[in-house]
Amino acid sequence: MSAGVPGKTLQLRSLIKAAGELELSLVEIDLPSPADDEVIVRVEASPLNPSDLGLLFGAADLTTAKATGSADRPIVTAAVPPAGLRAMAGRVDQSMPVGNEGAGTVVAAGSSAAAQALMGRTVAMLGGAMYAQHRGIKAAQCLVLPEGTRASDGASAFVNPLTVLGMVDTMRREGHKALVHTAAASNLGQMLNRVCLQENVPLVNIVRKPEQAAVLREIGAKYICDSSAPTFMKDLTDALVATGATIAFDAIGGGKLAGQILSCMEAAVNRSAPEYSRYGSSVHKQVYIYGGLDRSPTELVRSFGMTWSLGGWLLFGFLQKVGPEGTAQLKARVASELKTTFASHYTKQVTLAEALQLDEIAVYGKQATGTKYLITPHKKG
Amino acid sequence: MSAGVPGKTLQLRSLIKAAGELELSLVEIDLPSPADDEVIVRVEASPLNPSDLGLLFGAADLTTAKATGSADRPIVTAAVPPAGLRAMAGRVDQSMPVGNEGAGTVVAAGSSAAAQALMGRTVAMLGGAMYAQHRGIKAAQCLVLPEGTRASDGASAFVNPLTVLGMVDTMRREGHKALVHTAAASNLGQMLNRVCLQENVPLVNIVRKPEQAAVLREIGAKYICDSSAPTFMKDLTDALVATGATIAFDAIGGGKLAGQILSCMEAAVNRSAPEYSRYGSSVHKQVYIYGGLDRSPTELVRSFGMTWSLGGWLLFGFLQKVGPEGTAQLKARVASELKTTFASHYTKQVTLAEALQLDEIAVYGKQATGTKYLITPHKKG
Repeated sequence: MSAGVPGKTLQLRSLIKAAGELELSLVEIDLPSPADDEVIVRVEASPLNPSDLGLLFGAADLTTAKATGSADRPIVTAAVPPAGLRAMAGRVDQSMPVGNEGAGTVVAAGSSAAAQALMGRTVAMLGGAMYAQHRGIKAAQCLVLPEGTRASDGASAFVNPLTVLGMVDTMRREGHKALVHTAAASNLGQMLNRVCLQENVPLVNIVRKPEQAAVLREIGAKYICDSSAPTFMKDLTDALVATGATIAFDAIGGGKLAGQILSCMEAAVNRSAPEYSRYGSSVHKQVYIYGGLDRSPTELVRSFGMTWSLGGWLLFGFLQKVGPEGTAQLKARVASELKTTFASHYTKQVTLAEALQLDEIAVYGKQATGTKYLITPHKKG
Repeated sequence: MSAGVPGKTLQLRSLIKAAGELELSLVEIDLPSPADDEVIVRVEASPLNPSDLGLLFGAADLTTAKATGSADRPIVTAAVPPAGLRAMAGRVDQSMPVGNEGAGTVVAAGSSAAAQALMGRTVAMLGGAMYAQHRGIKAAQCLVLPEGTRASDGASAFVNPLTVLGMVDTMRREGHKALVHTAAASNLGQMLNRVCLQENVPLVNIVRKPEQAAVLREIGAKYICDSSAPTFMKDLTDALVATGATIAFDAIGGGKLAGQILSCMEAAVNRSAPEYSRYGSSVHKQVYIYGGLDRSPTELVRSFGMTWSLGGWLLFGFLQKVGPEGTAQLKARVASELKTTFASHYTKQVTLAEALQLDEIAVYGKQATGTKYLITPHKKG
């Protein structure tokens, strides 16, 4: 083992017990020496993305959360209601590491040239188990960040940037010429605006609050619709007429929004319809749900004819579609624009232990747009 | 004009007035001599399909229906609520003929050889305006029925048979190996069972009542799930495990059923899943809504991961996909099996005037499985 690499490391774990209890804790695990093609990365920054929170909290009812343990080794428990427990059957009684992506410094490397080349470099990683002080990983899975890039700049180099590029690519592949996005003032939404501005793709931003509209206006967004406004349906239809957008990516999932988007798309298409069709327009209208900020049921008032589709959209499915070469190209683009197009902003940095404090969970667990946490395992927050 | 062809004919019309009123009536219209490539068909049978009722009743509230006019020329009026009126904007104040399909005898023909060849033949037609005593139509749009086939046998030669063949074809094109169908004891559902039995396609039938299950059992259906049974979710999951069905065609549309099907598909796939995936299974699950027997909102409790799609399915879209040649092949198959695979059953025959009696509307307007009306314009019911 190289100097500075401990034989053990601390890892955040999420465990759902068959008795209906979630337990979050920090667990000391062995950190074996890297194999030939592996490196050990000192994790210095890892974001708390909505896609992480699903695994972290499972179906637990966070209003029942309790804190025990010590300041250094906090333990959080919460009840998992029976219905939620059934949905979690596949992970019950398995202590699961968490954290999709992160960045840090390579502190040990296996004997292969590829691994050795990474020694001392700052790298970004995708692959789970990032909420830890150290992460062993294959050298090939590391994205080397340009010189002068801090770990905190590279912590969100995969999920949001690749999702944004995936949305634009999916739009083109499926024959649409403009996009709709919800929860549009998020870090991801801001990136999407920058990419769409660069590439001249008309983008309709749907936000839930006036102050979120202001954030987007400032970065140059042209079409912004506030779903809390009484004129929302008309505003959205007008924006859809202006842009011709017939595909949407929805981070919310629950409630009426997905159906409202389809209805407004249909109304927009029909504004120029030559004659009445009882089955609605023949223009295909697509909404992809890619997040679940609202976990309540999706309600569709089917006033949008018969030519429509609503479905799930998953980054990993998209990357499989474009293949390893296409994925490598997308990653290279992200690395070169990490401080500009794909820059992320965090409202707070917390250590692993701080991430398990109830008052912090109460904030980042809400998944409110504009509240994004970064875990920095080796730095006091 | 040939002997026996009047210069005028009676046609059923549906009119939604801007003031918010539906008016159904019989209107005498001119029946011009056929052009060279046209024929005039004496319409002898035309079904009241669910797809016709949408155009016939629009968004009217049938509980407000009133009858006026005479026995020969009845007029039905009903209120159209404001929300419904907005959805009907494209057809307001246009008196619309109704009736997707029908069959009858060619009583006059244009001078072309193709038209002349049809004189005296019994033909089936698709193209609207079939609720009439006569229908002028292009010869090329007529499907000549085999000798000995009555008009009542050929009245439903298009919509249901082609929809059934379209479902099986769509299943294959999209890479699935078994089917789920709802409202499965309908005329269409029975046809689908016969086609699937012929072609060894496993079919899961979802019905809403025990007596409908009995109807299907009698014609050889193997997998039947009653959505009114307390064990429905388990029954459906078991049937999905047994068949491997990952695509469904749903005639209901509203309520929770579409989402329940997706949930059971996910549960069925996960029974053999090697390990927990937080995004659900990677097997694509598809539900197509092709009808709207329940007009209430569709409610999706999204407990089926991220690899799914729900969309509208329309016969006309499918026929465009297979093209004119593919469509002609499907039609030829239907014509040759009209009395067997594609046989329809009607609970009642009514004249045009009888179809506008309130007590008849109260029955066929319900779209209850097992209640199918046939309009016979020239025969007393």
